[in-house]
Amino acid sequence: MTFAALWESLLPVGRDSGTGGYRRFSWTPADAACRAWFVEAAAVRSLRTHDDRNGNLWAWWDPAVAGAAAEPAAGEGGLAGAVVTGSHLDSVPDGGAFDGPLGVVSAFAAIDLLRERGHRPARPVAVAAFTEEEGARFGVACLGSRLLAGVTDPARARALTDRDGVTLAGAMAAAGHDPAALGPDESLLAGIAAYVELHIEQGRALADLGEAVGLAAGIWPHGRWRLTFTGRADHAGTTRLAGRRDPMLPCATAILAARLAAARHGALATVGKLTAEPGGVNAICSRVTAWLDARAPDEAGLRAVVGQVVAAGRDAATAEGVDLEARQESASPAVEFDARLRDRLARALAARDISAPVLPTGAGHDAGVLAARVPAAMLFVRNPSGVSHSPAEFAEPADCLAGVEALATVLEDLACR
Amino acid sequence: MTFAALWESLLPVGRDSGTGGYRRFSWTPADAACRAWFVEAAAVRSLRTHDDRNGNLWAWWDPAVAGAAAEPAAGEGGLAGAVVTGSHLDSVPDGGAFDGPLGVVSAFAAIDLLRERGHRPARPVAVAAFTEEEGARFGVACLGSRLLAGVTDPARARALTDRDGVTLAGAMAAAGHDPAALGPDESLLAGIAAYVELHIEQGRALADLGEAVGLAAGIWPHGRWRLTFTGRADHAGTTRLAGRRDPMLPCATAILAARLAAARHGALATVGKLTAEPGGVNAICSRVTAWLDARAPDEAGLRAVVGQVVAAGRDAATAEGVDLEARQESASPAVEFDARLRDRLARALAARDISAPVLPTGAGHDAGVLAARVPAAMLFVRNPSGVSHSPAEFAEPADCLAGVEALATVLEDLACR
Repeated sequence: MTFAALWESLLPVGRDSGTGGYRRFSWTPADAACRAWFVEAAAVRSLRTHDDRNGNLWAWWDPAVAGAAAEPAAGEGGLAGAVVTGSHLDSVPDGGAFDGPLGVVSAFAAIDLLRERGHRPARPVAVAAFTEEEGARFGVACLGSRLLAGVTDPARARALTDRDGVTLAGAMAAAGHDPAALGPDESLLAGIAAYVELHIEQGRALADLGEAVGLAAGIWPHGRWRLTFTGRADHAGTTRLAGRRDPMLPCATAILAARLAAARHGALATVGKLTAEPGGVNAICSRVTAWLDARAPDEAGLRAVVGQVVAAGRDAATAEGVDLEARQESASPAVEFDARLRDRLARALAARDISAPVLPTGAGHDAGVLAARVPAAMLFVRNPSGVSHSPAEFAEPADCLAGVEALATVLEDLACR
Repeated sequence: MTFAALWESLLPVGRDSGTGGYRRFSWTPADAACRAWFVEAAAVRSLRTHDDRNGNLWAWWDPAVAGAAAEPAAGEGGLAGAVVTGSHLDSVPDGGAFDGPLGVVSAFAAIDLLRERGHRPARPVAVAAFTEEEGARFGVACLGSRLLAGVTDPARARALTDRDGVTLAGAMAAAGHDPAALGPDESLLAGIAAYVELHIEQGRALADLGEAVGLAAGIWPHGRWRLTFTGRADHAGTTRLAGRRDPMLPCATAILAARLAAARHGALATVGKLTAEPGGVNAICSRVTAWLDARAPDEAGLRAVVGQVVAAGRDAATAEGVDLEARQESASPAVEFDARLRDRLARALAARDISAPVLPTGAGHDAGVLAARVPAAMLFVRNPSGVSHSPAEFAEPADCLAGVEALATVLEDLACR
């Protein structure tokens, strides 16, 4: 079992020595190092690699019988075409080691395990690593899978900018990737029978249940909204309270309203990114921008939460002579994963005495995006503290191995018979 | 009169082409360009220039009679030594053109006016430009005058860092200035009979009174406090509300408490700078830092405002499992300018039929720092909108010329008789 060695080889890439967190942002040198790691991991396994038109990475374990890849036959359970597994290698700012990479490393390790056990694929198996899943650089989560699936406009994607004003097109070109090729890839999608993504759980549900692995039921609808409060810069030491148009005040009101609205609707709402301009200690801000991340069990709840936050922010802004622009930057509708595929995974796991409870999640994933186009499923690995998007994110080695075993079991069932 | 030409020559230096605001931060290339402008303005006037051990700039108009500079005699009204005028050239982020530079340009222009009228100094006259008055780069306002006056510890100053972690010592050394020399300069101070700073008003008092110029009564006590809220980074999409330690929430509470406390005490309190870390849209912050600028008519009011903000922030932080560290970064006690000097200025102005009402101010100035060591006074120039620390800051050309005339009048009275 090569999981540990493979895991260790990726650990140093893109880690900040100060915080211990990861800064693997797409199309940066850290991202290039992750890509090189992927290609190397595939090469030592004799897997055929390529990057698709959207910059997602693929490593193919082709069937031994020539023709099976080119002309996929409908297999047991009605599946035809390739079985794809994987996740992503990029991170949020100062993210943890597991969110994303665990799924990619486990995919390679599961192939190793199947080979050790003498299995050969009856249909193509691929390991995929999707680009910009976190949206940490260009603001749109799951950008690589969205472009592949045709749910994000390529022209809009090319024009996305990072915090330094660099466009996605510019960043891709600088990294040697042609941004003109961005867009849906129907022939690639048509060849995929199923996508199974393994991911560290980002809550404590498995820990509370005492289980090492689980299956995803669905993903809450969620989205990102940018709230831009525009007031007037002024001297903090001389401008009377009554003469101020301070955008920081309605922004603070909106932040507090987000928590209240989320609690009221059994939802989640968070402001984790905020910029204050011009940012002088002794100057009233001209503009404060807050990004709202909101998720709810259903679309109506999500609309209600965001509506209440914007209404509270707007009322407070009006009272302070401040303008509020609320703009949705991304939207991810509710996802219910393919029940037939999930039931098949559950049966395969049960046949090996692997317990895997079915859980909902508030986190978006490439599997959630791809679920609109191909049957998709997810395996979760226990996270004892539930902490994610933090250097403290952690999974026990034994649980990681249990995840690899579960993934190998479902790949064997889906692709090796 | 050379005011307009001199003013125009400084206008382009350090101006951001996007915002139209100034970014003249100490020891940067923009700062070096301001310094070069100062040296050039002095050179064309045959004024002797030097920079002192703290990086403040000086341009000397020496008396025609040799010996008067070396051995200052007590002149009329008990003054002995040099009469210094000036202000600062640095800016807040995206600051206006007038805050600081108006005092320096007016000082040179006033000397031009006195020379045109045939006056010669009976004692040394100096134009001074103090460094890092705004504290925009290293966080301590009036840093150059504080070091000169011995009210800031040089070792502490050397260790101050900018937002990129560059120390003041490193920035000074990189700009060719020896940071080891920082510290009080008693011989320089001992030679100063009076400091008169001209400054654009940063409120609307003169506009409301219909007056072009005014005299400062005193400066409200004020200070800066850094409020660091430390929680725990987590995934915004999966961490239950009850399991969160989100520092953004108590910070928002403190921001709103600042406004309420200021209103209650007839004071001012502002959060104009705020950083959210790690700053991912889909990550709960690990740390949020807000800088509080607070000012009040008296020390008791100031203590009450800050105490209420910190208490509100701490209560909210405790409720969210967040730590709050509140640290005072700078303190400026109440300043009452030298009444005898102010009265002398008022008499000199009245003798020329220049009306100059006496006003308090909430803004800190180098004159306020130096007032602890030398007789100091301030002249204000009308600001029609009251806007300051903004590209919209403005004074009418006629009011600027009235300021130069007033400054020339008091310099003539103090130094040319």
